[in-house]
Amino acid sequence: MKRAVCLLSGGLDSSTCLAVARRDGFEVYALTFDYGQRHRHEIAAARRVARELGAAQHLVMRVDLAAIGGSALTTPLPVPKDRPPEEIGAHIPVTYVPARNTVFLACALAWAETLETGDIFIGVNALDYSGYPDCRPEYIEAFERMANLATKAAVEGRMRVKIHTPLIGLSKAGIVRLALELGVDPAWTHSCYDPEPQGRPCGRCDACLLRRKGFAEAGVPDPLELRG
Amino acid sequence: MKRAVCLLSGGLDSSTCLAVARRDGFEVYALTFDYGQRHRHEIAAARRVARELGAAQHLVMRVDLAAIGGSALTTPLPVPKDRPPEEIGAHIPVTYVPARNTVFLACALAWAETLETGDIFIGVNALDYSGYPDCRPEYIEAFERMANLATKAAVEGRMRVKIHTPLIGLSKAGIVRLALELGVDPAWTHSCYDPEPQGRPCGRCDACLLRRKGFAEAGVPDPLELRG
Repeated sequence: MKRAVCLLSGGLDSSTCLAVARRDGFEVYALTFDYGQRHRHEIAAARRVARELGAAQHLVMRVDLAAIGGSALTTPLPVPKDRPPEEIGAHIPVTYVPARNTVFLACALAWAETLETGDIFIGVNALDYSGYPDCRPEYIEAFERMANLATKAAVEGRMRVKIHTPLIGLSKAGIVRLALELGVDPAWTHSCYDPEPQGRPCGRCDACLLRRKGFAEAGVPDPLELRG
Repeated sequence: MKRAVCLLSGGLDSSTCLAVARRDGFEVYALTFDYGQRHRHEIAAARRVARELGAAQHLVMRVDLAAIGGSALTTPLPVPKDRPPEEIGAHIPVTYVPARNTVFLACALAWAETLETGDIFIGVNALDYSGYPDCRPEYIEAFERMANLATKAAVEGRMRVKIHTPLIGLSKAGIVRLALELGVDPAWTHSCYDPEPQGRPCGRCDACLLRRKGFAEAGVPDPLELRG
């Protein structure tokens, strides 16, 4: 069975991405980061998703991005709330974590090489998104090119790095539909940047607003909202 | 004063690289990784080098590459000893750490962005080296290109990422000479992959052998050998 490393934050997008990798016949090695994020609740969600979707292994790796700071997700800076839809995605917001996907993909690449696979899945989306530069197709292509020069296995011709981005062209509603089609229960997932202590979503950050828009446009209820 | 992030392992090469950044007028932010390496003694050396060479800040960042494994530097695999010179560099050895420079440069990029600089120094060398793929000029160029698509500051035109590799074309003897010229005392540094418990170099791993070759060709004694 072919192996793949799948980045898994525990949000709806990365969980759906993992389900796509399973559907496509991969044995999935799920990789989650404990990086000092204020929404650590997502790590518990990631553990549940990995188990429910049958990941072969789930590694929660510590990378101390909070020591670097520069983001509302790793410092006490306030997380923006109640932003109008036209603002989300127009500018890169303070929830941007410097070079986060580059750090995450670099670690995924390291693990992929030890697993002797070049297949890496990441649930980035460049349509209904927060405007982060490291979610765009041109960035992903440049990472892939670099990765094929970076590793022993690629240089020796034993693997070819391929960064799979099955959600990149989907709307948030499309992701909701795909999730349901693939048996992902959105109740397992966690999207909120600034949850209450017990993990209940705030309902007002960009991540909550984008998620709500997706469910509304897909015409299905979000179990997290029903429960909230 | 212009700022730069400088990767600093505590070895002779990265210490010399840091000295070049200082000579070139940069305020240096030194970045060292505690990644589960067996030669943790290099972290103490890095602290000394950062202090002696006047780094503005020194961050020792934890990244758990040992959880991924795949290398003799992060697992109990034996470190090769007494390899003949013609073997070193001919094949990528088991001391290769999967995607290590990609992980390190990704973290350097994250810190650089929060420091509002695009200047990153790395002491890679593609001449007298162990044959690691992520030390070659084509890899560095591909990383730089990716980095300029990855970050908010680069995309918004506020910084241009430049990966400085001042040692890439030097022989090991050339690095020794440059180190002495710039006031780097080799006694501060630590190169050995497999030191004795008190940090004394083994004298037989690739890193020790390359270092010895460099000092011999430069015609100067290595204070670590004299002390050993």
